[in-house]
Formats: sequence, structure tokens, C-alpha cells
Amino acid sequence: LLLFFLLVVSANALVQDFCVADLSLPAGPAGYPCKKTSEVTADDFAYGGLAAAGNTTNIIRAAVTPAFDGQFPAVNGLEISIARLDLAVGGVIPLHTHPAASEVLVVIQGTICAGFISSFENVVYLKTLNKGDVMVFPQGLLHFQINSGNHPSIAFVSFSSQNPGLQITDFALFKNDFPTDLVAKTTFLDVQQIKKLKGVLGGT
Amino acid sequence: LLLFFLLVVSANALVQDFCVADLSLPAGPAGYPCKKTSEVTADDFAYGGLAAAGNTTNIIRAAVTPAFDGQFPAVNGLEISIARLDLAVGGVIPLHTHPAASEVLVVIQGTICAGFISSFENVVYLKTLNKGDVMVFPQGLLHFQINSGNHPSIAFVSFSSQNPGLQITDFALFKNDFPTDLVAKTTFLDVQQIKKLKGVLGGT
Amino acid sequence: LLLFFLLVVSANALVQDFCVADLSLPAGPAGYPCKKTSEVTADDFAYGGLAAAGNTTNIIRAAVTPAFDGQFPAVNGLEISIARLDLAVGGVIPLHTHPAASEVLVVIQGTICAGFISSFENVVYLKTLNKGDVMVFPQGLLHFQINSGNHPSIAFVSFSSQNPGLQITDFALFKNDFPTDLVAKTTFLDVQQIKKLKGVLGGT
Amino acid sequence: LLLFFLLVVSANALVQDFCVADLSLPAGPAGYPCKKTSEVTADDFAYGGLAAAGNTTNIIRAAVTPAFDGQFPAVNGLEISIARLDLAVGGVIPLHTHPAASEVLVVIQGTICAGFISSFENVVYLKTLNKGDVMVFPQGLLHFQINSGNHPSIAFVSFSSQNPGLQITDFALFKNDFPTDLVAKTTFLDVQQIKKLKGVLGGT
Amino acid sequence: LLLFFLLVVSANALVQDFCVADLSLPAGPAGYPCKKTSEVTADDFAYGGLAAAGNTTNIIRAAVTPAFDGQFPAVNGLEISIARLDLAVGGVIPLHTHPAASEVLVVIQGTICAGFISSFENVVYLKTLNKGDVMVFPQGLLHFQINSGNHPSIAFVSFSSQNPGLQITDFALFKNDFPTDLVAKTTFLDVQQIKKLKGVLGGT
Amino acid sequence: LLLFFLLVVSANALVQDFCVADLSLPAGPAGYPCKKTSEVTADDFAYGGLAAAGNTTNIIRAAVTPAFDGQFPAVNGLEISIARLDLAVGGVIPLHTHPAASEVLVVIQGTICAGFISSFENVVYLKTLNKGDVMVFPQGLLHFQINSGNHPSIAFVSFSSQNPGLQITDFALFKNDFPTDLVAKTTFLDVQQIKKLKGVLGGT
Repeated sequence: LLLFFLLVVSANALVQDFCVADLSLPAGPAGYPCKKTSEVTADDFAYGGLAAAGNTTNIIRAAVTPAFDGQFPAVNGLEISIARLDLAVGGVIPLHTHPAASEVLVVIQGTICAGFISSFENVVYLKTLNKGDVMVFPQGLLHFQINSGNHPSIAFVSFSSQNPGLQITDFALFKNDFPTDLVAKTTFLDVQQIKKLKGVLGGT
Repeated sequence: LLLFFLLVVSANALVQDFCVADLSLPAGPAGYPCKKTSEVTADDFAYGGLAAAGNTTNIIRAAVTPAFDGQFPAVNGLEISIARLDLAVGGVIPLHTHPAASEVLVVIQGTICAGFISSFENVVYLKTLNKGDVMVFPQGLLHFQINSGNHPSIAFVSFSSQNPGLQITDFALFKNDFPTDLVAKTTFLDVQQIKKLKGVLGGT
Repeated sequence: LLLFFLLVVSANALVQDFCVADLSLPAGPAGYPCKKTSEVTADDFAYGGLAAAGNTTNIIRAAVTPAFDGQFPAVNGLEISIARLDLAVGGVIPLHTHPAASEVLVVIQGTICAGFISSFENVVYLKTLNKGDVMVFPQGLLHFQINSGNHPSIAFVSFSSQNPGLQITDFALFKNDFPTDLVAKTTFLDVQQIKKLKGVLGGT
Repeated sequence: LLLFFLLVVSANALVQDFCVADLSLPAGPAGYPCKKTSEVTADDFAYGGLAAAGNTTNIIRAAVTPAFDGQFPAVNGLEISIARLDLAVGGVIPLHTHPAASEVLVVIQGTICAGFISSFENVVYLKTLNKGDVMVFPQGLLHFQINSGNHPSIAFVSFSSQNPGLQITDFALFKNDFPTDLVAKTTFLDVQQIKKLKGVLGGT
Repeated sequence: LLLFFLLVVSANALVQDFCVADLSLPAGPAGYPCKKTSEVTADDFAYGGLAAAGNTTNIIRAAVTPAFDGQFPAVNGLEISIARLDLAVGGVIPLHTHPAASEVLVVIQGTICAGFISSFENVVYLKTLNKGDVMVFPQGLLHFQINSGNHPSIAFVSFSSQNPGLQITDFALFKNDFPTDLVAKTTFLDVQQIKKLKGVLGGT
Repeated sequence: LLLFFLLVVSANALVQDFCVADLSLPAGPAGYPCKKTSEVTADDFAYGGLAAAGNTTNIIRAAVTPAFDGQFPAVNGLEISIARLDLAVGGVIPLHTHPAASEVLVVIQGTICAGFISSFENVVYLKTLNKGDVMVFPQGLLHFQINSGNHPSIAFVSFSSQNPGLQITDFALFKNDFPTDLVAKTTFLDVQQIKKLKGVLGGT
């Protein structure tokens, strides 16, 4: 019996059942290097950061709280992650994409109007979702979520990547030093409109 | 202007932003063939089947309600899916694996004791999770969920595959015609124990 | 000798060196079913559609001519494709993403100002490129190309997918029936600006 | 001629034909960092550890001898590995899964009864295999091998991963500190049965 | 209890544990469409075609007998396959590549001299392998096997693809209608040498 | 507003939009570790090394100038790269494979005769390409390019990998210490022919 144990344990000695990220080392294209298995505990596989509501006292009356690899290192290499959406009454997650993942949303509380736009003929797919309803947003396509009810809404969104990325169109256009004339040329927006939103979002 | 539209539309004419499954055609290794885009509507991307609680008046006092590609064809090819867990007081999702996916669980209501076992030294990673807590179960490893509170529990579980599979160890052993002597030889369980559980689960 | 030939040929009988798309059959998540090898000829592997300049007499004074799987079925399953950009003086490829691919651009003629915006702190990466210069645009990120010279420009752009997709932000917002109030809510653009661009681009 | 050599050699200077694992560095999700090519020799690509029979004088009268990345670093990144099975008369490889790989088995000597259980209706697929016969076990599904002949058996098993993992159900249940009441709740096994097998396998 | 069964069975109804190829339908980039699960039996998962020695009474005194997806449809989608090598005394598997797979070889009988050539500085990695020895050949690189002993040799070779492909350099050059002047220009071989080998191998 | 910015920025803090290679660290199977995002500039994403013609005053009257990860670290992890081909009159890129990538070629100047050979029945697919014509070479198959016109030719070739590899058959056979008798045995070439080409290419 003992011999069998020894043999199989030796087989397992370098087995990689998971790869909890060691965020102190540089990542590569597939994610972060793994923490030593001997230093991994059950606590690594759970995360409490989504239990509390995000702060929605802001301009969009909404908050995104992520559990991506940076916050929840156990998802490293597992091609999945999750985030919490909180939308106060009137709250909106502005038009955005996740460059590296598809997304599944499930409504936990309230009513959410969500939509995405295909690149094929620019079709807008719009749905109003209630508690327990699920919606999927295909990878890389522009989408949004709005609280369309009279009460705060909560949703959880899961991603097909440990690091889906999040590019909010408005931030990409107006919350940086993207030269106004280039924004105008590449979006056809009026210069006045661009300057206004740069003012709101802190761009220069 | 017209010319530009025509050019870009022709570029887009066969673009595949998504691949809603046509379940009437045979699947391949990467999933089902796609429905024609012209027949796809916003309704394809939403699913209401997880809104109602699963029926937990059964032996395990629990229910798993899936939104995999078979139920929710829009996830086809997107490497993500979701399911709802309902656990009555004392309810348990028995030990099982998902052969093709990692899983992220978020507790929506109640208290859940969850755990998985690594193949490296057979370490048991156990956590008690409350509302809003998240846990990840790496691909292919044995795991379970138990309602460890005094009230019904609800969780949503997301998977890194449109079709994660679900192999419940007890069902694989006892809910089929797996010859009792082979079960005994390959698990070291007593024949009497095997026959008892085959009786409970309907095996022969 | 003959025996050897027969053996090896039988080994090869079903080998799949390539998978030229049969566009008459429905695609799946990995691409189109393959044409029979016996019907494939050298002509399938070459494409002449990028030899002629695209028509740039349009509002953006630019044209994108693709050789994706829809136009060039031989790239099916090979995770690569190519397109030609023609930019008249003052021409611009407006802000857009490719949801499913990274892109490498090489300038063949003229001078192009190109840029992309990261989701990390919304950094704008801008370069002016001359003949023979190369630039890479990471998957899913917003980017654009502008003819910044005094002569027509030509570039070839290659993609890490047979079907990279192309989502032009302006088209997604203004060239469809996306309700104006939803555009406003999810972009913070003024209603007047939205209506103006819907007018230009044919949205309703 | 010389110029040509210099040009092409510079092109090759950082080419990565293979990635022999440097086991002294931490792995990442895709495997271990590569040894320097200049330190790699032909010896790295061969492994003699499967030439000798594993020791089968143990409770299962069987041995698994792996050549995974931990033992045979040259398979790192190549998505393939191999192991040797030795089964004395009456020997058995107990019910187990490989979380990360499909397996192909070829019988080299003796007679082996092998089987796997699908998650679809828990179908048991059983075969008796003789010398030269091949069987495939799809990824993540429970399977086993038994010497069903009167002589020692040998097989080689190949995997679609450099690190397939190996989770033996009995070990996961009984060869650790998995609390007996949790084992009982999640498997329906009798407490007495659990304690008996914990005793045999060294669990607590 | 019954309710639980019904719920879980419905969850499983479309689960895809495997995808045995239906060779009568056209393949796609990821492989063949799947046979209906209800028509799959244990026989699909086993293959007897490698049990008998290949016929080595040919010019190379060697034979390759494959169990790729075309011969063994159960490997479809599983990214693994296997073949048998028989080498009579003096037998050789000529220089070749597998465009789509890495290979692991295990010697079952005899002595084999095997080698591969890297593209980095064209290094030749040569090993003499005896019974039980294992060697790995990285994807796409030129390699060969020679019986370097005084007795017939047998080996099994596994691949990281269901369809690794097999391109024998000599066949690609001389066993077809590749114009002699193009062969000469692209290989620097003498026309006389080319014509000689075309004669031997049946090229024109 | 400020709160919103803080929340989203913290979400983005570890986002990996790209992974510019840090060539000073050891690569892994998926590529090189990433440079710190704070040290990445627009210059990293552009490369000027393909703007100048390669030197074609050599035996093949041709040059390959690569922009793979070693030369252009920004393509690391993006599964795409590019190179420039210069072919003087009579120039030829000898028969070769890319073990890890498919290739798309576009002719920028002149006339190129290109071809590849399938492993299925060793079919030769030959095309003569003019300015603007495109051709695709499936992964791992032998192929070549010849200037078949009366003027210098230029082409750009893109690859479905950041590191496609380049194995020139002649170099693998004759530009190293591959023992002449092994070359003869594995290619059927005459010893005299082998020695002649080893002489030309510097092999021993």
C-alpha cells in the first residue's frame, strides 16, 4: 500500500490543478505565474468583495465591482471571472465593450434594460430584464445596462476570461488627452460636443 | 456616402458576431451550427428559465437549473454559460465534476458550505459562503455545495464553457447498469453498500 | 514500393490540410464546413479582390476592402485574414473595433496617422506611419487610421482571425434604429448631436 | 551567401521551436518558462523512466508511471504527455478522472478491461482489450482499467495535455481530512463505509 | 426523488461528453459533426486496427498504421490520436513533418534511432532509443525514425491532434507533378537527382 | 463623479490590454512576460524595420525580413506577426515550412510564382501572383516563392502566430552536422548530392 502511495504522490508532485496568481510577478499572455501550491489555502478560492453594494453616488448612479484576476487571483488561468453591477434609480452603465470576453448577466434585483449592437447591419438587440432573467453579450460588441425600474437594481455579470477588459466608449473618447480634432475626424462629432464631454469627464 | 455604405455592408455580409445554436442540426466539437442571422432576434439573447426556483422536494432537497447551450442556444460558441442552484434547508448538490469547465459561484440568498478536492495530495478546500460571497471551482475537480444555514439558499453558478457537463459521482456509480463487482473493484466499496445505493438511485 | 504507397495513402485519405469554406452550408463557432478536397484547386488559395483600389468617393474618402472568409473562403479555419485600406487625401477610417482579432497594418503608400486607445487609464497611442512602417492594434480596442499626408494612402491590414468583425462606433450609434434617448443615456451625447449624426448616417 | 545567412539567422535568433520546462521557475497557466535553447540537448527530448516496470506489490497490484511535464520537461507547452500502466494479475487502476486531458490507451501486454461513464444518462462504456488494442477516454470522465487476464498487463496511455492531472475518486474521498459527515452528505455513503475506507487509505 | 431525476436528466439532455465523428458529413475546422449519442456504443471508443503489424515489404521496409479521426472516429474533437510504426531491419520512416501536432513516441520492441531538426540554427537532435524509451518531437519540425538494430522494431506514436497530418518531404518533392525546374530552383537539388527520385517514387 | 472614476480605475488597475514582450525574461509556452504598462509607449506598437529592402545580393537573390516577437515585441500574445520578402530578378525563397502558423502573402511589386504542397496525395497548388494579389499557405505545409518576373518583387507575409518559426528544408538537411548517411537514409538522396549541398551551405 505504502508503495502505491509513494508512486502516485510522486506522479502528482508537480500537478497543476489550478494556478492562483502571484501578482507580484510579471504576467504573460496567458496570465500570471502561479503561487506555490503549498501556500495556497481555501481562502484563495473565495472572495467577499462583491458582497457589499458599490457606491452609486456618482454621475452615472451606478457602480461596477470586479472580481477579475487582479482582485481575485484564483481565477487566473481558469478563463472565467465575475463582477457586480449596482444601479441606483436612473443608473446606467454607459456603452462599453469587453475586448477579451463574452458576458452573461443575471438580474438579482430590480429591472434592467440592456442591449448590444451587432456589427452586422448594426442591429440593436434590446431586452428588458427582471429578477432572475439572464442575458448574454457576445465578445467585443458594444453594450450597456440601464436601471429602467423605480428601485435600485443589482446584477452579477460573468465573463469568459479571467481578465475581460472594460473599454467605456465615452472614457476612450473624452477622459484622456485624445486630441479634439482627431476625435472629431474619427467620430464626426461636433467639436463643441467633444469639448463639453471632455469637460465633464476630465479630458484635455 | 452611398458607396461607402455599400462597401462596408458587403464587408459585413458574412460577419459572425455570434452563433446562436440551431439545435436541429448535429453539433460538432466546437458546438452547434449557427441559426441564420436574419432569423435571430433579441429574444434569443435572453432566457427566463432561471427566474423561478427549481423544485427541491426531492431526496437531495436541491435543484440545478441550467442555461447551457441546450436550454439557451445563444451561448453556443461563446465559452460561457450559467445555472441556478436552489437548496432547501439541508439541501445538497452531491459530489460532482464538470469535465469541460471551471465554475464561479455567487451566493444570492442563505448560507452555503462549498468545497473542492485537489488531485495534488487530495487537499480539501472548504469555505462557508454568505450572501454576495463568490467561490471558484477549478476545471474537472470534485466539488459540492451544501445549504449549511437555516433558510433556503440560492446561488448562480457560471461556467467557462457553453456546455460544461455535469458528472455526479453517485449517479456514475449507482444510477446505471455498472456491474456491481466492477464498482467494487474500482472503488473498494463494499458490495452491500453498492447494492444499497443502486437501490436508492435506480441502478441495476 | 507499391504497398508502401497504398498504406500511406490510406493514412492520408481523410487528412485535413486545410478547410476551404463551403459558404453554402451553415457556419459553426469554428467556421464553415469544408469543401471536398477533390473540388479544391489552386485558385481557391489566391484572391485578386484586393488588387484594385477601393472607391473613395464617399463621405470618409476611404474604403476598406476585405479578404475575410466570406470573400476568400480558403482562410476558413486558418485564423488569419487580410484587407486593403485606401485613403484619399483627408480620408479616415473612423473609430472602430474588431471584436475577434488583433490587427497588423503595413503602409504601402503615403502617410497614415493611426492610433488606438487602451482600456487601462484610456491611454491614446498615436503614431505617424510612412511607407513600409508597421503598427499593431491589440484585439478589441478602439482604433482609427487617417491619411495625414498630401497624397492617397494605401495599407494592408492583417488579422488574427478568419473573421475579425468590424464595429464602427458611429454606425453602431447612429446608423440604425437605436432609440435616441437610449443613445443619449448611454453616451452622454446631446440629443441634438445624435439626431444630426443619425441624419447623416441614415439612422432613425 | 554570407549575407543571406546573417539575415536568416537573425530572423531565427529568438525562434521558439520548443519550450523545455525550467522547473526551477514558477509555472504559469500555460506551463513553465523555457530553458535557454543553448542549454537544451538531445537528452532533454528523450526519457527512460518508462522503460522499467512500476512496482505492483501494493494494495491495487498496479502502478502508474508518468512522463508528464514534471518528469519529462520537454513536453512543456506541447499539449501531450504519456504514462505507463503496469497491472499485476488482479491489478486495478481505481476509478479516476484526468481534469485536463483526454486519454488514449494502447495495450502492450495482457488483457485489460477498461471502461468510462458518460454524464449523459450515466452510460457505462465497457471494453475488453487485448494486445495492440486501443481505447480512448474523453476528457474529465470517470474511468478505470482492470487486468482481466491471467498474466501481468502493460499499457501506455497518452494525454492531450502536458499535465493531465489525476484525481482518484477514492483518494479524494478517503485519503485526506475530508470530514466524514461531509463525505456522507455529499455521497450518500454510510458513515461506517467511509470510516472503513479512511482507515485503509490513511484518511482522518 | 423522481423529481430530482427528471430535473437533472433534462439538464443533461444535450450534454456533449464526446463527439464521435460522423464521417458521412462534411468536416469543419474543428473536426466532424458528432454521431447521435443514442447511436454511440462502447465499440466506438475502441479500435483494433493497430494490433496487427503493418506490411513492411516495401522500399522503406517500414509501415505507418494510423488511428486518426478517419480510422478511429471517437478521437474527433479530443485533440489526441495514435499510430503504430513497424520497422523491419533497415527500415526507415523518411524525413517528414506533422503540420498540426506534436508527437510522443514509445519504443515497444527493438532499437530505433530517431531525430528532429530545429529551425533555430538547424540543430539536429539525435537519440538512440531502446524498448520502453520515450521521445518527443515538437510540432511541425522535420523528423525521422530508423531501425538501428538487428531485429524488427515496433513503436507507438501519439499526437496532440485528432488529425496531425503527415507530410513526407520526399513525397512532397518527387511523388507528384511538381515541375522539375521548380523543384530544382526551390531546393538547389540537381535536375538529375530530382529525375531519379521522381522515377523511384512515381512523380512526373 | 470622482467616486465613479476611482471605482472604475481600480477595476482597470491590472487590466491587460496587451502584453509587450520583455525579452530580457525567459519566455513560456504562450510567449514572453509583459513589460510594465507604465513603461509602454506608442513607439512599442510601431516598427520601422520593414521599410527598407532586405539585401538580396546573396545566393538566393532574396531576403526575408521578419517582424516577429523577437524584433517587434508588441505582437507578443496577439497571435499575429508580419515579414517582408524581397526577391531580386531570379530570386527565390526556398522550400520551407512555418511550424506554428498559417501565412497570407500580398504582392506589393512585381510578379511572384508561389506554391505549396498538401500532404493529401501530395498535390502541388501553384499560382502566379501579380501586384495586389493575395495567397494563403496553410499551417505547416511546404511552400516557396519565386520571382517569376523581370523586375524585383516585394511582398508582405502575415502569420497567425507571433512566432511562426521558419524551417528551410535545405538548411535543415545541409547546413548543419546532420550525418550524411542519415540524410541519405531518410531522404533517398545520393551521397554525392548531399555532400555537394553541404559544401554550398556550410554543413559538415
